[in-house]
Amino acid sequence: MRTIITIGREFGSGGHEIGLRLAEELGIPFYDKLLVSMVAEEGEFAQKYLDEMDEKVNIHIAPFLATRSNYSLYHQPMSDKVFFRQAEIIRKLAEEGSCIFVGRCADYILENHKDLLRVFLYGNLEDRVARKQAMNIEFEEADMTKHVQATDRKRARYYRHYTGNVWGDRNNYDLCINTSVTGIEGAIEILKSFVRFRESAETE
Amino acid sequence: MRTIITIGREFGSGGHEIGLRLAEELGIPFYDKLLVSMVAEEGEFAQKYLDEMDEKVNIHIAPFLATRSNYSLYHQPMSDKVFFRQAEIIRKLAEEGSCIFVGRCADYILENHKDLLRVFLYGNLEDRVARKQAMNIEFEEADMTKHVQATDRKRARYYRHYTGNVWGDRNNYDLCINTSVTGIEGAIEILKSFVRFRESAETE
Repeated sequence: MRTIITIGREFGSGGHEIGLRLAEELGIPFYDKLLVSMVAEEGEFAQKYLDEMDEKVNIHIAPFLATRSNYSLYHQPMSDKVFFRQAEIIRKLAEEGSCIFVGRCADYILENHKDLLRVFLYGNLEDRVARKQAMNIEFEEADMTKHVQATDRKRARYYRHYTGNVWGDRNNYDLCINTSVTGIEGAIEILKSFVRFRESAETE
Repeated sequence: MRTIITIGREFGSGGHEIGLRLAEELGIPFYDKLLVSMVAEEGEFAQKYLDEMDEKVNIHIAPFLATRSNYSLYHQPMSDKVFFRQAEIIRKLAEEGSCIFVGRCADYILENHKDLLRVFLYGNLEDRVARKQAMNIEFEEADMTKHVQATDRKRARYYRHYTGNVWGDRNNYDLCINTSVTGIEGAIEILKSFVRFRESAETE
């Protein structure tokens, strides 16, 4: 059995660290912004432009409808083109073998994949602000609080735009973990032990 | 460190079995309807009446406000009296040592307890209906579907009435597990491994 894990995450809840370390422990690839670079390497888009587009949205029509229709690439704004190209790459990588994706609506893109585990990480606002402040000491606390809240709003908007679903609603995920309570190590432990349990159940 | 686990659960998601087996594996007490009996044993209420009142609501004022005020017992409808008496018992049991509670808004009643882990279990409607049908083969599938949905609505109403919060909203819990994906065994494994991880982290 393969292990395909997607991680949605509130800003500052430790998603990047948890995904990266879990991938190391399980010995499988980890993808986040790297996906964007992979699109760029194909020469279709300039890296600078992709950086600007990363998890941002141009509002036109609801593109989650487009994923199920013949909505032409020609009519898509640039952010949609980036999204759909990323979605193709995410599907291709998931076919190649076990891996972990952070962000980019990978839960939705892969939703019918049989080996999928869709994770959402969240936490208390104060804890997430403190975590981000420890990484960026030049930010004032009040500014960081605004930045965390604005980033969450941006992610919710992006998710809604491309999936039509509510970001962070448990019904879109298989496991939701409050890292304020479990800690980073506890969240890694939970995910690692479940993956190993599932692998051992499979081989019995 | 003590382990106080509260389990909220959609009907048919395996909450009772998971709570009971986890309690056995961890060697700690498990409480659900037993709580109701404990109230009854005090002789305040007849068992039959308590069975009727169990996780049901008489709509009057919002009692979650009452938990924080001097709202008199005299003015409470009977379902509220049962709830507040259960809440006292839940707090007392949590003070006595590690244990597991299923339902009864125990997550809210114990929300500031330092050793608390608030779990919510959910699953696909079809899986939950199938699980309940396997236990009650005389039910037709359509009737069981209605029964599962009605029970969920009743629980949501009960939770809203006594806590003022949204039942199943991840922000009221520390760990939300989709048992359609993890299975009963997988959910027990996740909870057991996290409890053991937290205990070992504590003693280091």
